[in-house]
Amino acid sequence: MSTCPIDDRVIRPIRFIAGQCQMIDQRLLPVEEVWLTYTTYQEVAEAIRTMVVRGAPAIGVAAAIGAWFGARDIETESSWDFFQEFEKVCAVLAATRPTAVNLFWALERMKHFAQSNLDRSVMELKIGLEYEALAITQEDEKINRQMGQQGESLLADGARVLTHCNAGALATAAYGTALGVIRAAVEAGKKISVIADETRPFLQGARLTAWELQKDNIPVTLICDNMAGYLMSQGEIDCVIVGADRIAANGDVANKIGTYTVAVLAKEHNIPFYVAAPVSTIDLSLNDGTQIPIEERDGREITHYKDLQLAPEGITVRNPAFDVTPSRLITAIITEHGVISGNYQSGLEKTVNQR
Amino acid sequence: MSTCPIDDRVIRPIRFIAGQCQMIDQRLLPVEEVWLTYTTYQEVAEAIRTMVVRGAPAIGVAAAIGAWFGARDIETESSWDFFQEFEKVCAVLAATRPTAVNLFWALERMKHFAQSNLDRSVMELKIGLEYEALAITQEDEKINRQMGQQGESLLADGARVLTHCNAGALATAAYGTALGVIRAAVEAGKKISVIADETRPFLQGARLTAWELQKDNIPVTLICDNMAGYLMSQGEIDCVIVGADRIAANGDVANKIGTYTVAVLAKEHNIPFYVAAPVSTIDLSLNDGTQIPIEERDGREITHYKDLQLAPEGITVRNPAFDVTPSRLITAIITEHGVISGNYQSGLEKTVNQR
Repeated sequence: MSTCPIDDRVIRPIRFIAGQCQMIDQRLLPVEEVWLTYTTYQEVAEAIRTMVVRGAPAIGVAAAIGAWFGARDIETESSWDFFQEFEKVCAVLAATRPTAVNLFWALERMKHFAQSNLDRSVMELKIGLEYEALAITQEDEKINRQMGQQGESLLADGARVLTHCNAGALATAAYGTALGVIRAAVEAGKKISVIADETRPFLQGARLTAWELQKDNIPVTLICDNMAGYLMSQGEIDCVIVGADRIAANGDVANKIGTYTVAVLAKEHNIPFYVAAPVSTIDLSLNDGTQIPIEERDGREITHYKDLQLAPEGITVRNPAFDVTPSRLITAIITEHGVISGNYQSGLEKTVNQR
Repeated sequence: MSTCPIDDRVIRPIRFIAGQCQMIDQRLLPVEEVWLTYTTYQEVAEAIRTMVVRGAPAIGVAAAIGAWFGARDIETESSWDFFQEFEKVCAVLAATRPTAVNLFWALERMKHFAQSNLDRSVMELKIGLEYEALAITQEDEKINRQMGQQGESLLADGARVLTHCNAGALATAAYGTALGVIRAAVEAGKKISVIADETRPFLQGARLTAWELQKDNIPVTLICDNMAGYLMSQGEIDCVIVGADRIAANGDVANKIGTYTVAVLAKEHNIPFYVAAPVSTIDLSLNDGTQIPIEERDGREITHYKDLQLAPEGITVRNPAFDVTPSRLITAIITEHGVISGNYQSGLEKTVNQR
């Protein structure tokens, strides 16, 4: 079967080739570029849980591929039994991380395909699911490029753009969401410079955003998360663009911890605050952001960096991995189907239904 | 001569004993408790520059002791020549760090003593300067305890208090400024719990605040700097208290980078934002905060932790060590002479003049 094309000029953190999945270990970047190979759904679930792969769209892609691994290995001739087993596979993958909805979206799409084709043979279902996983992977890049086209006009020539976490190629199949909009603006001939929050504790900004922008020769300046306010107060930031892990029906956005703080600062300084996310990130089943589950991760991510101890033994730690930015702080939400602002409720509904 | 009393129950980062100065190496805490010994002013200057000792009042104390080392080693019988040389010693110490005014305040006080006593012998000047350095050290603890008494009524029983950086015993001769107010509230029988921002890049919160509060059995929860907004939005913070490196005549406060962001967040959530600082931190010569020089430190503090590389090679970095919080975001300034709020201009002036 066909596979994702490999083009070394384009950063693709997930390679789906010849029945295997290779993922760049995002815990080791930028110091080491190590590709790990996965062949079972349990391995993929562990990779999502331990953040070998992260970023809402990339998690969705990985989960789809993992689900196919699970499907491939189900031994039965009965399509009905197959579907029962496949649901268990998807449940394991769904239990890895709670906040990003793309994970559940991708698994639902895989399950929907199987359920809609229960009159087919198990072999046909397996082949169909492989194509579905591949389609999710390939569509993601296409969606991001469309999102870039939709959003790039929001970035003025010469703009100094703050971003938080990594909503780049590494967070997706390729190209990125927030960084995709920046890439599209650069491809349109604009001079854009990026200020990257390092994004504690996992340092997605320092390790991943800085790495991929440097690779693409887009000027990037690294700061600590607590410096964005100072730079804004000095007039050194023109706009903010971030990704999203889940968008509620009213436009509230869950994204990497610290996003809310950046949005409050942007409002204080009258700086536009943009969110770039695929339609698959929109969850119309939730009225508002208070209903989005926020993952709390192991405190060791804060008290240690690799084996280095940063804090006293036995200290109490809070480690929420995400926060919610209320829609009132968001200037616009950029999707592959258009830019939404103003009345998010109706705008998001329309965008989802036009899919 | 008498020396600072050593009481192991009280954290004193600077020991001034028998013509030597010992300082706990704050770069190694909390993993190692290493005391370094200093005997020359050049060594003390280097300790300030490299942040073996940090925190505005502690820098003032260290500079005073360093100035005395310099004075002691000046070889002349002429008081006038002595003073010329002493000014050079003070200039070296003053060039170590630009933002905290306590450094310049302590050196001015030492120079003022010498200049006012030029009719004395060099030997008398040296003895007098040793007593002056000792007085600055001992007064700092007394001032902090007074500040605690002045401010503790602002903290309600059960208060969950956010602090940024370390404005504790380790930032002073003993007891602390912001943490001194917290200690005074605890000593008054209140149940106080502290949320400590880790405070990148030097991690004064994770390494120092967490360490000293844990030692004093005051409940402390460590978070990353980008999590304070989330906790505020969840109603988990009752007030904020921080120290200061310099306060301008209009009440604008320079403090550790990230303080401004916390103040903007506190305003957004209607949470009181307090600053605790000795009168020596007030600089009436500056009209407002825009005139306070902001130190930019080496980018390696952000791109590396010890020898571990956190960001790509050759990445551009900004590393401002302080920011300015405008007085409009400050609920009150707590000094050893009283709590100032409302009209900071007249309140600060009155407080300085009552000294």
